[in-house]
Amino acid sequence: MKLFKTIDAMQKWSLQEKRDGKRISFVPTMGALHEGHLSLIREAKKHGDVVVLSIYVNPAQFGPNEDLQNYPKTLDADLDHAKKLFVDATFLPTDDMIYPDGYQTYINVENMTKNLCGASRPEHFRGVTTVVAKLFNIVMPDSAIFGEKDFQQLVTIKRMVKDLNMPVEIIGHPIVREPDGVAMSSRNKYLSDEERVAARSLNQSLEFANEMIDAGETDIKKILLKVKERIKSESISKVDYINLVNANTLEDLKEFRRPALLAIAAVIGKTRLIDNHLFE
Amino acid sequence: MKLFKTIDAMQKWSLQEKRDGKRISFVPTMGALHEGHLSLIREAKKHGDVVVLSIYVNPAQFGPNEDLQNYPKTLDADLDHAKKLFVDATFLPTDDMIYPDGYQTYINVENMTKNLCGASRPEHFRGVTTVVAKLFNIVMPDSAIFGEKDFQQLVTIKRMVKDLNMPVEIIGHPIVREPDGVAMSSRNKYLSDEERVAARSLNQSLEFANEMIDAGETDIKKILLKVKERIKSESISKVDYINLVNANTLEDLKEFRRPALLAIAAVIGKTRLIDNHLFE
Repeated sequence: MKLFKTIDAMQKWSLQEKRDGKRISFVPTMGALHEGHLSLIREAKKHGDVVVLSIYVNPAQFGPNEDLQNYPKTLDADLDHAKKLFVDATFLPTDDMIYPDGYQTYINVENMTKNLCGASRPEHFRGVTTVVAKLFNIVMPDSAIFGEKDFQQLVTIKRMVKDLNMPVEIIGHPIVREPDGVAMSSRNKYLSDEERVAARSLNQSLEFANEMIDAGETDIKKILLKVKERIKSESISKVDYINLVNANTLEDLKEFRRPALLAIAAVIGKTRLIDNHLFE
Repeated sequence: MKLFKTIDAMQKWSLQEKRDGKRISFVPTMGALHEGHLSLIREAKKHGDVVVLSIYVNPAQFGPNEDLQNYPKTLDADLDHAKKLFVDATFLPTDDMIYPDGYQTYINVENMTKNLCGASRPEHFRGVTTVVAKLFNIVMPDSAIFGEKDFQQLVTIKRMVKDLNMPVEIIGHPIVREPDGVAMSSRNKYLSDEERVAARSLNQSLEFANEMIDAGETDIKKILLKVKERIKSESISKVDYINLVNANTLEDLKEFRRPALLAIAAVIGKTRLIDNHLFE
């Protein structure tokens, strides 16, 4: 596996691969790879001749009181995973390269980033779209794979790519869950045993809502209230939001209509977790 | 000359040219081509195997009380010019294609767009950088040529390209002037005979400042005052700004230091004109 530690080296390699007629499939990550990421890499192999992984904890997508400093780092294990899955190249940039002195350009997807996570993390998606656009210009992928756990991120990136006419296909990949139903996340490492049990309530409440909707319930207020109650029964959990939104625009639904997304963010102890269920 | 009226057709042609190993050189314009634009096209021919011209009056870079509706349109003459200069392809998109329903992604170069024209046209550069990024993703040029008359635009686009790691070389081209010294601009068509005479004061005041600086004057307040007086002697002219700035960052200079830019915007009658002089 090639390891690139400069923008120039990464860009040159990608350019040569493209000149050789290879299709590049790309998985951008913040490292601390878990089975969810590995499933993205496996998916990437279906869409390209070569697979590029990037590992970069992007400061621009963290708020001032968020976990940038403590974000888990497991680089050696990450590279082992990448090699075992036959990733062709891993890109490991540093902050100095990505945001050099005088840096001042940001991309905003202005509407769909205001709801859900955008409400409590106002600069988050500006950081995500900016770094993803940069990585796309450096890696020059034909396709890029993003997990559906960060559904708002996935839809926002799809919107950016469409709006800015970027020549990249964005592919979403379903949430991968632990045996107890908790959605895989690098942040699960922060959880104590007790908090880990409480974290199950996110997925459980989503399943509960799914059953209500399957049984014909269409009253959105009723659904959201029941979901909220289910999570609140865990005393160490604080709900950030529970919304039922149009899965394309992320606008709150007034009437249940597919494709819909039921999205949750909750703070378990000190750890903010998100989960969602897509009603296609 | 190829004429492309859809994004898809333009993008496919560019992709094929690149696959064939051709270097694409690009001149984005809003049409109403004058000798300044033609000099950009001639410059483009030096930097690429094929030259692409785009003609698109971009609504996102006009403010609510600006001249979007009246902006001069001379498409037939523009295409004649392009053919005579052996432009390989001209791209003619429409608003529906560039900003379709649901469009919401914008690029901001956040600092250097606040001074000079950005002070009185707060959304202008957001519109410029966004459409230029879109055009770059559609045309996929190796190099793009911009005139130095819109110096803030040139520096802002250079910054965006550097910040977002876009694989495009940005080339600036010197101002082309009419025999009476007025900088070529599509907006000169708006001027009455009397206003046209008054418009000369922009270049004349820049030359006056140049002479002061050549003669050793370094007091910026003094230079700016003299320039202002020179323009104000034309009763139909209203100065928007006269600034002496660092030519790289566009920040106001406190002491004269090269590379510096003396930039002027003034309203002659109802027409806003800009001009500048670069002290390299």
